Formats: sequence, C-alpha cells, structure tokens
Amino acid sequence: MPACPIMRVMQPLLAPNEIRSAHARIAGHVRQTPVVDIDIDGLRVNIKLECLQRSGSFKARGAFNRLLAALEDPATRSAALGAGVVAASGGNHGIAVALAAADLGVPAHVFVPATAPAAKQARLRALGATVHLEGQRYAEAFIASQAFAAETGAIVAHAYDQDEILAGQGTVALEWSQQRPDLDAVLIAVGGGGLIGGVAAWYASRTQVIAVEPRSCPTLHEALAAGRIVDVAPGGLAADSLGASRVGAKMFPIAQRHVAQAVLVDDGAIRRAQLWLWRELRLAVEPGGAAALAALLDGAWRPAPGARIGVLACGANVDPATLVEPAPLESATGAKR
Amino acid sequence: MPACPIMRVMQPLLAPNEIRSAHARIAGHVRQTPVVDIDIDGLRVNIKLECLQRSGSFKARGAFNRLLAALEDPATRSAALGAGVVAASGGNHGIAVALAAADLGVPAHVFVPATAPAAKQARLRALGATVHLEGQRYAEAFIASQAFAAETGAIVAHAYDQDEILAGQGTVALEWSQQRPDLDAVLIAVGGGGLIGGVAAWYASRTQVIAVEPRSCPTLHEALAAGRIVDVAPGGLAADSLGASRVGAKMFPIAQRHVAQAVLVDDGAIRRAQLWLWRELRLAVEPGGAAALAALLDGAWRPAPGARIGVLACGANVDPATLVEPAPLESATGAKR
Repeated sequence: MPACPIMRVMQPLLAPNEIRSAHARIAGHVRQTPVVDIDIDGLRVNIKLECLQRSGSFKARGAFNRLLAALEDPATRSAALGAGVVAASGGNHGIAVALAAADLGVPAHVFVPATAPAAKQARLRALGATVHLEGQRYAEAFIASQAFAAETGAIVAHAYDQDEILAGQGTVALEWSQQRPDLDAVLIAVGGGGLIGGVAAWYASRTQVIAVEPRSCPTLHEALAAGRIVDVAPGGLAADSLGASRVGAKMFPIAQRHVAQAVLVDDGAIRRAQLWLWRELRLAVEPGGAAALAALLDGAWRPAPGARIGVLACGANVDPATLVEPAPLESATGAKR
Repeated sequence: MPACPIMRVMQPLLAPNEIRSAHARIAGHVRQTPVVDIDIDGLRVNIKLECLQRSGSFKARGAFNRLLAALEDPATRSAALGAGVVAASGGNHGIAVALAAADLGVPAHVFVPATAPAAKQARLRALGATVHLEGQRYAEAFIASQAFAAETGAIVAHAYDQDEILAGQGTVALEWSQQRPDLDAVLIAVGGGGLIGGVAAWYASRTQVIAVEPRSCPTLHEALAAGRIVDVAPGGLAADSLGASRVGAKMFPIAQRHVAQAVLVDDGAIRRAQLWLWRELRLAVEPGGAAALAALLDGAWRPAPGARIGVLACGANVDPATLVEPAPLESATGAKR
C-alpha cells in the first residue's frame, strides 16, 4: 500500500537545519566560493564560482559532510577510521571522497570500471585512495562497491542519494543566499540530483530553482514529466559529470515540490557556454559546469524582465587544452563588467 | 637645477581622491572582481581574482579610466571621438585599450612590432582596433605610436606612465580594501609599475605593499636599490606581461615612499605557481599573473607570523594548453579550504 499522500507532504524532505549543520561541520574544510556579477546582453547575472571549490567541484561539500558526520557518530566512527569509506565514481565524486578521506585520516576505496581513463585512476591514487577496477561499466563498479562495503563494514558515500550528501551540497545555496540574498532564480545543472536536491531544499521556493540538463541525460526532466523516477540512457558531452541514469529517490520529492522548471540544452549549447566562460571571463569549467549557463545563453530558459539571476558554475575538472580558443579573446559585444 | 627635495616630498603623488574618482568613473564598465580565501600550509591567503576582469587583466581599469576621463574633458573629447586613442602594446594593455575603445565608440590604433604573433594581432582586430605594425621591437612601435599621435591629434593611452592609468589601476586596491579591510600585506607583480603605483598610492603604507618581479625583469628592484630609475634588459617567462625595461616616472616616487619591499622570483618559481593555481584552485593565470603568488610559495618573501596576506592574481591571458597538468589534480597536503 502506498504511503498516505498527505503524510508524504507533511514529512520534512530535508530540513534547513540539516543544511545549517552541514555548513557548520564542513566550514573548516571547504572553501567559501566567491561570486561575480557580469552583464550578458543587458542582463545582470551573478555567477557562483563553485568551480574553484576544493577537489574542483561542489562534490567536496557532500563528501566532507558525509565523512565528518560519520566520524562524529559513535556508531560509525570506528568503521570509518578502520574499514574506511567506499565510493563508486571515477569522476568528481570519487575525487572529492578521496580528498576528504585523505584530509580526515579515513581510508578511501574508490570503485571504477576497468575502462576508466588511466589519468583519473592516477589522480585518485595520488590522493591516497585505493582504486578498485570492477566491471566494464559504472553500474558494475557500483554493485561491487556495495558488496565491498557489506563485507568489510566500510561506510558508503553515495554520489547523490544520501541525506548527508544532499545536505552538504545544499550548503552551496545557504552560502549563496548569504552572498546574494536577492536572487529571483538560480540555474543549476543536474546529474543524479544531489546538488539540486540540496539547493532546492534550502531555497524552498523562495528563490526559483531552475534545473538544467543535457538533452542527452534528461533524468529529472523525464521524471518530473512522468511523476515518478524513470531510467534514461545517459550520453553526450557532459555525461562525464551529469550522466546519471536516474535521479535519486531522496531528491525527487524535493524536486517535485521546489524545482520550478526543468529545461534541456543540447551539447552544442553546452560547448558554446563552456567556450564563452573561457573567452569572456577566463573561467575554466567542465561541460557539466557550463550547462547551467548554456540554458541562459541559448534561450532554453528566459528570465522575467528585471529578474536577478544566479548561475552556478559547479565544476572545473576539465582538460585545459580543450579550452583553446577558436575565436578572439573577447567580442566587443560580449560580457560587460 | 633639480627640484627642491622637500617640495617633492610635499607634492601629492597620486591623491586618494583621484583613485576614488576613477572608481566611480569606471564602475559601469569593469567588473568588481571577487576574492577567495585559501589556506596554504596553514597560512590564510586572500586571493583577488583580477584575472576574471574584462579584457583578461587589470589593464581594463586604467584603459577605461583614461578614455572616460578624456571623453569627460571638453579639451580632449572631440580628439578622442575623432582621431581616437593610440596605444603601443601587443599584450594586455593593447587588448584593454581596444576593448574600452570599442565600448565607448572611440577609434583605437594599436601599435605593435611586426614580430607580434598573428594571434595577438587578430585578437586586437576582432575588438575593432586598427593594428599598426611598426619596427621589430616594442620600442620602435612605441616611437611610431607617439609620432602617429602627434600627427593625428589622437589621445595617448600609455601602458603605465600616465596619471589616469595609475589611478585606474589603483581602483583594484580601493575595491580590495573594501572587500578585505584587514590585510596586513599584499603581494603585487610589477612590470612597468602602473599597477603597483596605483595600489601603493591607495594603501599609502597602511597595508604593506610587496613588489614581486621576475629575476629576469627587475626594473623596480634595481631602481629602488639605485635610488633612481634604471634600464634593464627584460626577458624570461613572464616578459610578455611584466617585461618593461624601466618603471614609470610617475610611479617611482610612490614606490619609494609606499612599497615596503621588492622581491625577485625566478622563472621556475613562477611556472610552479602558475601550475599550482590551476591544480589547487582551477584558476588559469598567465605567468605574470602567478608571479605574486610565486614569492609566497617559493619563500622569496616570508610573512610575519599571523599576518593576513593578500595576493593579486592580475591576469589570465594565457594559452590554456600550457596548463595541462604534469601532476595529479590536488595533493592531499595542498591548498585547504
């Protein structure tokens, strides 16, 4: 029998206090990332430079919150310090967990498919993580990581579908709402939904939260349309960071209540936004980090006249060689101020 | 007969009000660049991200101030709008003048030696500037630019040795002192000295201003040691942005009074700082933009215990391909927070 719908609505999805606690917990370990105001064709846009976060993306927030909370809790502290933490990800989450674990003296076990590029494996090892190569695809590495955790008693840091992860990512919004209390809408890129889940829980519809997904990985767009979590086959330019096959169960009810709109952008728009950020602002971001801006530059989402807009530049784990300019530095009609 | 030394000391070098006026003048045209606090081996360092400035460097501040002041002044307005503005620089100053001129409807004439890379010439032309190729070296292009200005009546935007340029660059410090009023010392890279001249005039020894120069272009270091402006033969990794052959006459007395120390860093230290900023903070800066941090990372300058330090990341006109990582993303013992 399904839960009573009224009870589900009454249930706190992710309480603001959980995000406040996370913020206090991780304050000594992550950076308060700066914001910058720019002018795009007459529109004032505030960009939060989460691409300058430790580990190169917002994922450090969730990873530190998960590990610090586990170390605070007597029931999990010795498991964390003994067997360690397990994550499945060759991307930003894996890097963030490895970094947080190294900082906190927790052994890190990161599971990646055997097809993961050698450079990513090397990066994880350089951070002190033990890299486990399992299967040919992410799903197989994930299953192996779950089995490893069950066998060893290591704690799990899920890439997005976990309370501490959501609360940690939500600290981006807490911080942003202190830096710019007057934003009418914020644009947030979505993969598995941990980031936008935390952000939407914090803003709780006081500020419009706009989800931006690549047309090739429309996990949240499809789920909101269907009214339930659905599987998609992720692909495309930003699949590396936004390519989850479904959104998290914990974020979905938050998104249903507090995500104002989910828009889709194509790979060309993402690539243009990535090059635009380099050309006009000298910001190096990965395709997933440029997706939110792409919605604005490409017109996939149009703000109300006079609206104060925020765009989250969420990650910078990019090969800088891919930013080599195809065009001159700055057009006379480009970004102002 | 030399001027009376006492009279020279009494003379205001660059009044704070000139910097305040410049700040108000350029406010609608340049960005307020953000700052970020990071932790380097236990030392708290505030980095001002002037590398995100329009045109890719702080030079936009001086260029806009020079042009806006010329447009405000009835004696120069028609010359600026008619014959235009002249600059000699294939680097950051040229780009900044071309950008400001395009914004303000002023014809821009940028003089560069015929040896200037085609990419830089193309960048200037894309901004709408007329590029004049003159001679084989910067000095020849500069002389030709002076002759052109004399013939045509165009106004001159000097790369550093001009009141409006100094006052414009000084707005970096005005802004920074509002963002972080409590800094004990700031580290500033020096080329011709326009930037540090404005910054030192603003701080007026209330905050220690530390000059950082490549060992291969020690213009200010040598001049302060000699007690007079001297010529050097600039070279090395950062010569592109810091390679002036002498400091400006207008900045030198300011530096004598308000620059606490001039330190030298070698090219290896600059390159390490540049790669460090990419690896630890995902910031793309040119060698000149990394020089100030190099002094700190390399120990060329050591702060007093507990001192609050600022580092200016002053420019980002770099080929991103040169940032390709020779090492993993982030070491466990690297930058914190």
